[in-house]
Amino acid sequence: MSDTVCPLCFPVDESLLWSDTFCRVIWVDDANYPGFCRVVLNAHIKEITDLPPAERQRLMNVVFAVEMAVREAVKPDKINLASLGNVVPHLHWHVIPRWEDDVNFPDAIWAAPRRAAMQRPLLADIKPLLQARIQALLPIQE
Amino acid sequence: MSDTVCPLCFPVDESLLWSDTFCRVIWVDDANYPGFCRVVLNAHIKEITDLPPAERQRLMNVVFAVEMAVREAVKPDKINLASLGNVVPHLHWHVIPRWEDDVNFPDAIWAAPRRAAMQRPLLADIKPLLQARIQALLPIQE
Repeated sequence: MSDTVCPLCFPVDESLLWSDTFCRVIWVDDANYPGFCRVVLNAHIKEITDLPPAERQRLMNVVFAVEMAVREAVKPDKINLASLGNVVPHLHWHVIPRWEDDVNFPDAIWAAPRRAAMQRPLLADIKPLLQARIQALLPIQE
Repeated sequence: MSDTVCPLCFPVDESLLWSDTFCRVIWVDDANYPGFCRVVLNAHIKEITDLPPAERQRLMNVVFAVEMAVREAVKPDKINLASLGNVVPHLHWHVIPRWEDDVNFPDAIWAAPRRAAMQRPLLADIKPLLQARIQALLPIQE
């Protein structure tokens, strides 16, 4: 869990969907999970309970807005939310759309695949739709 | 994702650490992850964004109290939070203490094991400590 060069503090190739001074929403380019997003705190904090309660709530409000946007944009069978950070101990949330025929279902996406990849909607079509929904749900007020 | 007989609506063998009218905290008896808890909404709801915002916040406040209690009780290297619900589509949160030498680290606990189980603190010693911390952090106000 070395954090000498944290890839979330110094991102190289992020595709940003939304951001404010507190956190950002990035696009995860995964053809098996079109609509997969991550919500990343800007500060290098390890656990959500290291934040004061109002900031925990602020971060979760962004996670929930992204969940709503993903549900609207790709209509998954299920949403998975997870904050792990074992590899990169910088607070971030995975917002993952799941389908009953996806490669891992009903297992977590970190489990061994159960089946071959299914045809999914094109990522290029989803990204602008998702970004528009997130921006509508999270107007910048700063 | 059949929910005809939901095991979280009709639990058979739950070990309860805390509960109120809205949700409950249950002990997960896993020798690899001593301190592992689940926070279970009492109502049969699938996604957290199916709840109104005040109830999302109420549930997360319980999750965060449990995270703090687990951190205090077992002093893990990391906390993992996850709400998946692919097998049981009834809203619940996993609060999982992780150690750098645990069977899956740094992978998610749902991945294939990387190493043999390490000696961990005895579950019997941790449970009353954890329960006392959760009860202190979450006084029942109803």
